Amino acid sequence: MEYRKIKDQDKDEESLGDDLESLRGKSPSNAMSLGAGPIDRTKWKRKSMVTLALTVLTSSQAILIVWSKRAGKYEYSVTTANFLVETLKCAFSLAALARIWNSEGVTEDNRLSTTLDEVIVYPIPAALYLVKNLLQYYIFAYVDAPGYQILKNLNIISTGVLYRIILKKKLSEIQWAAFVLLCAGCTTAQLNSNSDRVLQTPFQGWMMAIVMALLSGFAGVYTEAIIKKRPSRNINVQNFWLYIFGMVFNAVAIVVQDFDAVMNKGFFHGYSFITVLMILNHALSGIAVSMVMKYADNIVKVYSTSVAMLLTAVVSVFLFGFHLSLAFFLGSTVVSVSIYLHSIGKLQR
Amino acid sequence: MEYRKIKDQDKDEESLGDDLESLRGKSPSNAMSLGAGPIDRTKWKRKSMVTLALTVLTSSQAILIVWSKRAGKYEYSVTTANFLVETLKCAFSLAALARIWNSEGVTEDNRLSTTLDEVIVYPIPAALYLVKNLLQYYIFAYVDAPGYQILKNLNIISTGVLYRIILKKKLSEIQWAAFVLLCAGCTTAQLNSNSDRVLQTPFQGWMMAIVMALLSGFAGVYTEAIIKKRPSRNINVQNFWLYIFGMVFNAVAIVVQDFDAVMNKGFFHGYSFITVLMILNHALSGIAVSMVMKYADNIVKVYSTSVAMLLTAVVSVFLFGFHLSLAFFLGSTVVSVSIYLHSIGKLQR
Repeated sequence: MEYRKIKDQDKDEESLGDDLESLRGKSPSNAMSLGAGPIDRTKWKRKSMVTLALTVLTSSQAILIVWSKRAGKYEYSVTTANFLVETLKCAFSLAALARIWNSEGVTEDNRLSTTLDEVIVYPIPAALYLVKNLLQYYIFAYVDAPGYQILKNLNIISTGVLYRIILKKKLSEIQWAAFVLLCAGCTTAQLNSNSDRVLQTPFQGWMMAIVMALLSGFAGVYTEAIIKKRPSRNINVQNFWLYIFGMVFNAVAIVVQDFDAVMNKGFFHGYSFITVLMILNHALSGIAVSMVMKYADNIVKVYSTSVAMLLTAVVSVFLFGFHLSLAFFLGSTVVSVSIYLHSIGKLQR
Repeated sequence: MEYRKIKDQDKDEESLGDDLESLRGKSPSNAMSLGAGPIDRTKWKRKSMVTLALTVLTSSQAILIVWSKRAGKYEYSVTTANFLVETLKCAFSLAALARIWNSEGVTEDNRLSTTLDEVIVYPIPAALYLVKNLLQYYIFAYVDAPGYQILKNLNIISTGVLYRIILKKKLSEIQWAAFVLLCAGCTTAQLNSNSDRVLQTPFQGWMMAIVMALLSGFAGVYTEAIIKKRPSRNINVQNFWLYIFGMVFNAVAIVVQDFDAVMNKGFFHGYSFITVLMILNHALSGIAVSMVMKYADNIVKVYSTSVAMLLTAVVSVFLFGFHLSLAFFLGSTVVSVSIYLHSIGKLQR
C-alpha cells in the first residue's frame, strides 16, 4: 500500500515535470509517440480513453436532445433534471471512491475530508456557469436560437485565450492558427440558409455573446486549474467537491424558478424514459469533462466537443435522415486540418 | 553592354541555384526577409510587384464582368475578344522588346528569332486551354453556372499536385495543409443558398470537373516549366511566342464558332467601352500571369487569384451594394490563415 502511494507520487511529480517542460516550450509527446516509457504510454492511453469517452458522450448527448425534441417531450422542469445530473455525478464519484478505499485504504490523497483552503475555490466554476445560464435567457432578446448556436463558437477562441493567460501554457504559432481554424470550421459546418441573420445581431447581443464565451471559457480553465493544482489528489474526491456545489446551486435554481411546478405536479413530473437517458448521459459526460481536465487539458476538451458536433451530424443522417450540406463538408475539412496542424504544431515547438 | 550581360547571367545562375536549393528542401526566403543581399531584395520586390499587379488586375477583371453583366452587354462574340486579347499581349511584348533592344542592343537572350527546339513546346499550354474551354460547354449539361464556380476551386488542388509532380518542387506538410485550406476557404467564401445543389452533381459531372481542373493545372504548371527552363531568356520573348500561338488558336476558334456573325455583322459588332476595358484588362492580367510564372511560381499565382476573388467581393459591396455573407467572412478567415501558414511553412522547412 505504502509502495503504491509512493509510486503514484512519483508519477504525479513526473507529470508536474511534464507541465514545466511544456511551459519551457518542449513537448513530451514526441517521445511519447515513439513509445518511450511504459508510464508515458499508460498516460497517453488514459488521455486517449477519456478524450474518446467525452467525444462519444457529447455527440450522443446532442442526438438524445434531437430525439427528445422529435418526441416532443420537454414538459419536465429543466432545473430538477440538472439537480439530478449533479446528484448522480456525486453518487458516481462516491462509488468510485468506495472501491478505491476498499482496495487501497484511506490515504491523504483519497480521503474525502478537506481543508477550507482546498475547498474554497470549488464553488467558483459552478457559480460562473450559473451566471452564464442566467445570461442565456437575456441573449435571446437579441439573437435567435440558431444564431446563438453560431455565436457559441466564440467559446473556442475564449478558451484558447484564457488557457494561455490563466494557465500560462504556451501554444505554438501553428497551434494558434489551428485554433482560429477550429472556430471557423465549426461555424462553417453549422451554416444554413438563415445563418446570415446573425450578422444583424445588435451591439448588445455581440457583447453578451462575448461575455458568455468568456464566462464559459473561464469556468473551464478555472476547473482545470483547480484539478491540476494538486496532481496527486484523487480525481474522484475533486469531482465530489465540484459536484456538491453544483447540487447546491441547482437546488437554489429549483426553488427560484420551478418551486410552484415542483410543489403542484411533483419533482418528477413530465419525466420519460428519454429524460432519464439524458440525465444519465449528462452525468457521464460531466465526469468525462473532469477526467479530460485532469489527464489532458481544455484544448483537448474543445477539440473533443468540436469533433462530437461533426459526429452528431453524420450520425443524424442515418438516425433521422438529415442531409449534410456542402458547408458541412467544407467545415469538417477545415476542422480536420486544424486537428492535424494542432498535432504537428506540438511536435515542432 | 557586355558587362551588363554577364551580370544578368550571374543573377540567373544564382536564381537557378535557388531553385536547386529549394529542391533540396532549403528555402532562401528566410535570408531574404532578413534583408540579405541587394539582389535578393530586388528579386523579392519584383516578385511582390508582379503578384500585387496580378491580384489587382484579376479582381478588377471580375468587377468588369459584373459591370458588363449589369449593363446587359454581351452581344459581342467572345472569340473575337479573346483574339484581340492575345494580339494586344503580343503587341505589348513587342513594344517592351523594342525598348530593350534600343537600350541594350540585341543579345542572345532577347532576340526574337528562335530555334524549333525552343519554340516547339510553346503551343502546348494554348492547346490545353482550348481543350478545357471546349469541355466547358459540355459540363453545363451536368452542373449549373454557380455550381461550376464552386467546382472550379478544384483547380487549386490540381495545381498543387501537378506543381509537385511536374516541377518536382516540394511543399512542406504545413504548406500542403495550407493548400487544402485555401481550396476549402475559397469555396466557403462563395457559398450561397443554392450551393448545396452541387452535391447532386452526377458522376460524369465530377469526372469532367476533375479533368478540367487537371487540364487547367497542367497548362499553368507547363507554362511555368517553359518559362523557367531558360531563366536568362528575356520574358518578353517568351511571352511573344506564347501569345502568338494563342492568337493562332483563337483565330481558329473565330472561324469555327463565329464565322457567320463576324461575316454578317463585322468583327467589332457589339463592342462597347466596357468591352474595350475588359480586353485591355485581360491582356494586362495575362502578362501579369506570365511575369508571376517567371519571377514567382504557380503557387503564388493561385494565392494571388484567390485573394483577388475575396477583394472582388469586398469592392462589390461598395460598387454594387452587394452583401457579404457569414460564409464569406468564414472563408476569408480560412484563406488568411492559409496564407499565413504557407509563409511560416516555408520558413520552417
